[in-house]
Amino acid sequence: MAFPKVTGFTVKDIRFPTSLEAHGSDAMHTDPDYSCAYVIIHTEDLKLSGHGLTFTCGNGTNIVVAAINGLLRVVKHLDWSLQQIFGEFGDFWRKITSDSQMRWLGPEKGVMHLATGALINAYWDLWAKIEGKPLWQLLADMSPEKLVSTIDWRYMSDMLTKEEAIEMLKERQSLKERRIEDLKTKGYPVYITSAGWLGYSDDKIRELCQGALSKGFTRFKVKVGKSVSEDLRRCKIIREEIGDDRLLMTDCNQVWEVQEAVEWMKQLAEVKPLWIEEPTSPDDILGHAYIAEQLKPYGIGVATGEMCQNRVMFKQFLKAGGMQFCQIDSCRLGGVNENIAVMLMAEKLNIPVCPHAGGVGLCEMVMHLSMFYYCSITKSMDNRFTEFADHLHEHFVDPVVVKDGHYQLPTVPGYSTEMTEKALKNWEYPCGHEWQKLFAAGTFKPEY
Amino acid sequence: MAFPKVTGFTVKDIRFPTSLEAHGSDAMHTDPDYSCAYVIIHTEDLKLSGHGLTFTCGNGTNIVVAAINGLLRVVKHLDWSLQQIFGEFGDFWRKITSDSQMRWLGPEKGVMHLATGALINAYWDLWAKIEGKPLWQLLADMSPEKLVSTIDWRYMSDMLTKEEAIEMLKERQSLKERRIEDLKTKGYPVYITSAGWLGYSDDKIRELCQGALSKGFTRFKVKVGKSVSEDLRRCKIIREEIGDDRLLMTDCNQVWEVQEAVEWMKQLAEVKPLWIEEPTSPDDILGHAYIAEQLKPYGIGVATGEMCQNRVMFKQFLKAGGMQFCQIDSCRLGGVNENIAVMLMAEKLNIPVCPHAGGVGLCEMVMHLSMFYYCSITKSMDNRFTEFADHLHEHFVDPVVVKDGHYQLPTVPGYSTEMTEKALKNWEYPCGHEWQKLFAAGTFKPEY
Repeated sequence: MAFPKVTGFTVKDIRFPTSLEAHGSDAMHTDPDYSCAYVIIHTEDLKLSGHGLTFTCGNGTNIVVAAINGLLRVVKHLDWSLQQIFGEFGDFWRKITSDSQMRWLGPEKGVMHLATGALINAYWDLWAKIEGKPLWQLLADMSPEKLVSTIDWRYMSDMLTKEEAIEMLKERQSLKERRIEDLKTKGYPVYITSAGWLGYSDDKIRELCQGALSKGFTRFKVKVGKSVSEDLRRCKIIREEIGDDRLLMTDCNQVWEVQEAVEWMKQLAEVKPLWIEEPTSPDDILGHAYIAEQLKPYGIGVATGEMCQNRVMFKQFLKAGGMQFCQIDSCRLGGVNENIAVMLMAEKLNIPVCPHAGGVGLCEMVMHLSMFYYCSITKSMDNRFTEFADHLHEHFVDPVVVKDGHYQLPTVPGYSTEMTEKALKNWEYPCGHEWQKLFAAGTFKPEY
Repeated sequence: MAFPKVTGFTVKDIRFPTSLEAHGSDAMHTDPDYSCAYVIIHTEDLKLSGHGLTFTCGNGTNIVVAAINGLLRVVKHLDWSLQQIFGEFGDFWRKITSDSQMRWLGPEKGVMHLATGALINAYWDLWAKIEGKPLWQLLADMSPEKLVSTIDWRYMSDMLTKEEAIEMLKERQSLKERRIEDLKTKGYPVYITSAGWLGYSDDKIRELCQGALSKGFTRFKVKVGKSVSEDLRRCKIIREEIGDDRLLMTDCNQVWEVQEAVEWMKQLAEVKPLWIEEPTSPDDILGHAYIAEQLKPYGIGVATGEMCQNRVMFKQFLKAGGMQFCQIDSCRLGGVNENIAVMLMAEKLNIPVCPHAGGVGLCEMVMHLSMFYYCSITKSMDNRFTEFADHLHEHFVDPVVVKDGHYQLPTVPGYSTEMTEKALKNWEYPCGHEWQKLFAAGTFKPEY
């Protein structure tokens, strides 16, 4: 395989005015403008470029853009060819995340790690395009040895070693062919979140539930955390619409204290939620473990991960029993490499991986990760399904397709992270045409 | 007390070329240029401004500057008077750290939280100057109720409630007068790190040890993590110089795996280190707890905190036994408010607080925090002492003074965070005069 030469990088601040319609509202994030920091890796082959992004909520996307530019200085200083990068991807990843001066700003968390995600995702998109495969297939076709070489194993050895991971991957290789057939015929199961946003009216929630049921969805997530009585009322509305056999999950987006989470959820137990997601601070491993222990008799598990900053935190959440459902995020973690590491750790403990999605581009990315997870990592499919939210897919060149409650297998080469030229042009912040119109109309004030 | 009106903010990127002399070198950060993102709050009283900073290591300081500017948009949008801010400082802090859109970029960690530290520190400097008191005294003079009102108590209730904190503070009020006298006559005990930087030669280490001993220092920290034999050799040199009765601490700056840390330190046990600092990933609470348990029979404790991102992580480190020495950082945490929260939690468990210092301005800040800690928080003085490194103090208007191994009590109003006009002018990056000279000489290439 011949790798083209990289000729340059473009970094963009892309935002959508979703706060106008309360699309992404929850107890903690009341008016997000779903956005992303977006990276393009250009090559000498003008038809071939890698696109990566990290999801953000509007203001501050420029800070992530500055961080990506910081990482690009490290990349340029390294001056590795694509062959070297993909040959020793784990080493490259470490060099990006461990720059002697910039490491202090993380390490491996927050803005710097979101930036890492965008950049690393762009490399994966490029690699998959070069190989002419959708990302899930690029991964599924790799040898176990090659796969684990993409991971930085630092700080994981007390949970999972590279050698153990190779063993696990080898053991599962016999599943692959049959599972690819499953994915071709049926796809990968999803749950839907759009129905439950806090900002919607009861009627809108009923209408969305009915619409979703008619499209074949059988798993629903509702946002809670307003008040116990209000939550109960809304959950009962959804239970009425979806019936007792379908799955209902709850998500409070971090608004509770540890003990408060326990007391609150005991009162919601009657609507039989499968999990409570992000019951308290996303950093509180021991708090989550306590909540999980207390809620176990009620049949409620704890789900978290969309704000879990890196593999070291996941390692502990998994070990401590603070996470019965492991919600990896394709951007919060440092790209595909670290997501694979976390999926492998979860599998070792037989904890279901149920990726976080929604936002901008997250569904597009996690469908690949989920397909790969099914082909190569997970033995069981108990309680394995991936989030889906029906927003902003129209801006992607190869958008997610969901049929009958399942993500359909992507076939286009790449990581499905590429946005349309039109979207990149119109929604670049603050100078894109659509933003200029919103500013002119006084609907928004520019952040700068 | 009349509060002036805030008229504007200045944010600066200040860097020093410390990599030229390997001043701050350690196993993980091989060539830092000690730097800071710096905030000035201007008021209608031209003689009164608040100065705050957050320490950084060179490249990427501009990212923190961008983050501070992001937070300033929240501040301007809030439009609170200083009276409101200082009247409900805990609420103000929450609003700054929980902005609905920017929260996604943290929350409360990494770049965003470093930015919070700089900004909040500037407010404290301003408040202390308005009251005409050094910061430690502003804090020591506050009623327990007022003190706890500066803290955002979210996510702490399973460890310490506001009411418990008030009780603790009241209980300790009788200590205050005598302790202020102690501080006036003797100061607050320090340990010294400068002697042990990895980049120095053996002779330079001996020379620095002897110099430090002659100045009255009795506690020494050495960087380890190169190789067991090399570490042993260097530690023995220092033991030879300082003798058996003085304290020796070791710091490996996160280079080890969990089990590796245990094995390595067992072999260094013969030089009797009081603690091993940052033995592995700073996010690994359970890993630190395991290391601490294994090293307990060897009399070696675990110290960490300079990269501990927020009070939620400290809460867990303290609870889990992952931290026998609690190393708060005046900038990594979101300013004075969160540092007080952590000191109170540590005190509840009788775990010594030994603040991290060095870098740029950290000594200046932690001397205030340590004095306040002694006056109002800690009952015991067992194993309580604060880091000192002798670099870059000349750039501060009211620099730290150390005599006979003790920080001397600061008396100038403010938080001692204000840099000299000359330093701010000459070392602003990349356009300051001194940097322009370094670029012209080819010693450095500009980052931009």
